[in-house]
Amino acid sequence: MRVMGIDPGLTRCGLSVVQAGKGRGVIPIAVGVVRTPAEVPVPERLRRLSVAVNEWMDDYQPDVVAIERVFERGNVSTVMNTAHAVGVLMLAAAQRGIPVHNYTPSEVKKAISGNGRADKKQMTAMITRILGLSEAPKPADAADALALAVCHCWRAPFLARMGPGTAHNAPRN
Amino acid sequence: MRVMGIDPGLTRCGLSVVQAGKGRGVIPIAVGVVRTPAEVPVPERLRRLSVAVNEWMDDYQPDVVAIERVFERGNVSTVMNTAHAVGVLMLAAAQRGIPVHNYTPSEVKKAISGNGRADKKQMTAMITRILGLSEAPKPADAADALALAVCHCWRAPFLARMGPGTAHNAPRN
Repeated sequence: MRVMGIDPGLTRCGLSVVQAGKGRGVIPIAVGVVRTPAEVPVPERLRRLSVAVNEWMDDYQPDVVAIERVFERGNVSTVMNTAHAVGVLMLAAAQRGIPVHNYTPSEVKKAISGNGRADKKQMTAMITRILGLSEAPKPADAADALALAVCHCWRAPFLARMGPGTAHNAPRN
Repeated sequence: MRVMGIDPGLTRCGLSVVQAGKGRGVIPIAVGVVRTPAEVPVPERLRRLSVAVNEWMDDYQPDVVAIERVFERGNVSTVMNTAHAVGVLMLAAAQRGIPVHNYTPSEVKKAISGNGRADKKQMTAMITRILGLSEAPKPADAADALALAVCHCWRAPFLARMGPGTAHNAPRN
């Protein structure tokens, strides 16, 4: 199972791809950050993000997308821009019939570190160790995207046992 | 100038197209509502909305899109779904190089009725009269989509005078 992890955003969007291995083994395939400049109008920023995520999906052919759930917290216009970005990202998955799973930040933290309130430093250290990386992934959005993908690899067997209706399963066309 | 007005939503999305005439004259071209069922996963609902709005854009070739600005008010998941929908709708415009303008509900109410707090009944009556319709547009989302389009027709000359930077102008590709 190949999982794309997405830490959504318009200024910075973290993207990752991992391959679920045996047991809790997870192999990192790719990680990166898509940026769009704040001075560009929002619709054009969404278009650029759409182009980028579609290129990633073409290149890495993920079987499933794990994306962070947006909360109404912090700056209103940042939250709204992130929510617009999530719409565009989920659309890209649905257009390819790729199922989408949403995870809250605390679900990801708990899955990776055992602590739903783990700080960024702890999360980065855990992700670096889990994936056997020679150095910590940067920036934070890249590490978060990897954490989301690993979280899904570990949660997927439980979700599968719970049956359908637990995910945003988009039917294949 | 042909304006597409959009009252965004995932359960119901109001769409309209009007043609700006002489002075304050506005000619209605089309109005309708796109619905997606609540029991379908959100990514697939976004895909269906995207297909529908792209069909409208193919059919009516608008020069500009006027869309209601989303607020963090009311039910959290409804607000987020609407914000996701707005992302998909703005993407469709940007992919065609169509500029997008956002208006708040009170800006639309004030432009149409002179009162930023006008109720739905008053707004529907005004839109029916302004467009010379034989009966009131239904449902409310359709009337709101027409109001947004008329609002832009009337505001556009002022925005043009104020110069660039007042709108989400997506550059033509």
